[in-house]
Amino acid sequence: MYRLYYSPGTASFPVHWMLLELGAPHELVTTDITKGAQKSAEYLKLNPTGRVPTLVVDGKPYGEVASLLMLLAERHPQAGLGPAPGEAGRADYLQWMFYLANTVQPPFRLWFYPHEAAGEANAEAAKAEARAQIEKAWDRVDAQIASGGPYLLGTHLSAADFLVTMLMRWSRNMPKPASDWPHIAAYLKMIKAMPSLREQHKREGLTDWIDA
Amino acid sequence: MYRLYYSPGTASFPVHWMLLELGAPHELVTTDITKGAQKSAEYLKLNPTGRVPTLVVDGKPYGEVASLLMLLAERHPQAGLGPAPGEAGRADYLQWMFYLANTVQPPFRLWFYPHEAAGEANAEAAKAEARAQIEKAWDRVDAQIASGGPYLLGTHLSAADFLVTMLMRWSRNMPKPASDWPHIAAYLKMIKAMPSLREQHKREGLTDWIDA
Repeated sequence: MYRLYYSPGTASFPVHWMLLELGAPHELVTTDITKGAQKSAEYLKLNPTGRVPTLVVDGKPYGEVASLLMLLAERHPQAGLGPAPGEAGRADYLQWMFYLANTVQPPFRLWFYPHEAAGEANAEAAKAEARAQIEKAWDRVDAQIASGGPYLLGTHLSAADFLVTMLMRWSRNMPKPASDWPHIAAYLKMIKAMPSLREQHKREGLTDWIDA
Repeated sequence: MYRLYYSPGTASFPVHWMLLELGAPHELVTTDITKGAQKSAEYLKLNPTGRVPTLVVDGKPYGEVASLLMLLAERHPQAGLGPAPGEAGRADYLQWMFYLANTVQPPFRLWFYPHEAAGEANAEAAKAEARAQIEKAWDRVDAQIASGGPYLLGTHLSAADFLVTMLMRWSRNMPKPASDWPHIAAYLKMIKAMPSLREQHKREGLTDWIDA
């Protein structure tokens, strides 16, 4: 039994989605970031970064969405959600997981919380920079899907699809959302039809993107 | 035979260091970021992010330092530089690799290139925010070493040590470098005695930290 501390639509959502895709028993604990629940003393004991998600595995709490997706994929190998060490495609899988976590996810933080980087007065400059970095990432992701597909890493669904879909969803209200890129648009159409993703959206009460 | 595109002291250095620690045959290609070599058309074909390192593995180029450290650890399992999937400590290992890559490394980018986030006029505000985030990370790393050690994840050297040492070195000229934290100071004394790290510093011509 896993326990997931989550807030609807945030970085916890791909973990929730993967738990449903895997059919893995889990319980949910609401951690409403709009009320600052992730900064409470109780939550910080579980996750000193003060961010969601936290997943309790074998009684111990862990953070970092990309890490949790890789961990769940490894713990449920029968689902085939990522090549194991030594298998074909392993280097690409690791590269994409870290590229998304280290190079693409951080500018989203800058886009949503520009005051963190530069103060309220400079928020617009920070957002412009974040937007440029994110759009450059969509160029690369679109080319990657075009070169292989239908999934991000080729013929098989992997943890990288859960992570990149989170980032694509986060771009939905940006001036140029990911779905403006043609191969990403086709990719999202396929992903949005997944029963596990639709169920996760239903359980988290998210309605503004899944059918858009 | 690996081929590493590197620039002295940058994010390529832990990859160079691990290659030496593993005794893995490799060749080096200088990519001088002070001259913008990582933005050349030729380099961008290898690594569209325009960042070092790039490591050519079995004839194919890969980027992202944390990803390359995990990959090398997996390809040379006899060195024991990280628990394999299913082994004790795996969840901690994944969490720390992504925490360092996703939450600690990005504010260093903000510290060194504050104009990226907020323009030259707002560089000081961005640096102040980066500094606060980095110092918070040293609090957590110091507590982690204090609770276990002597390595970041306990009794065994792992890829996470190569990654965190890179970040610690990058803090050397900050107002409060990592070595101001007492358990990190003891940790760095141990790490700096490693023959492979000393050899990597010698080969890259780095002299301003290893004996400090």
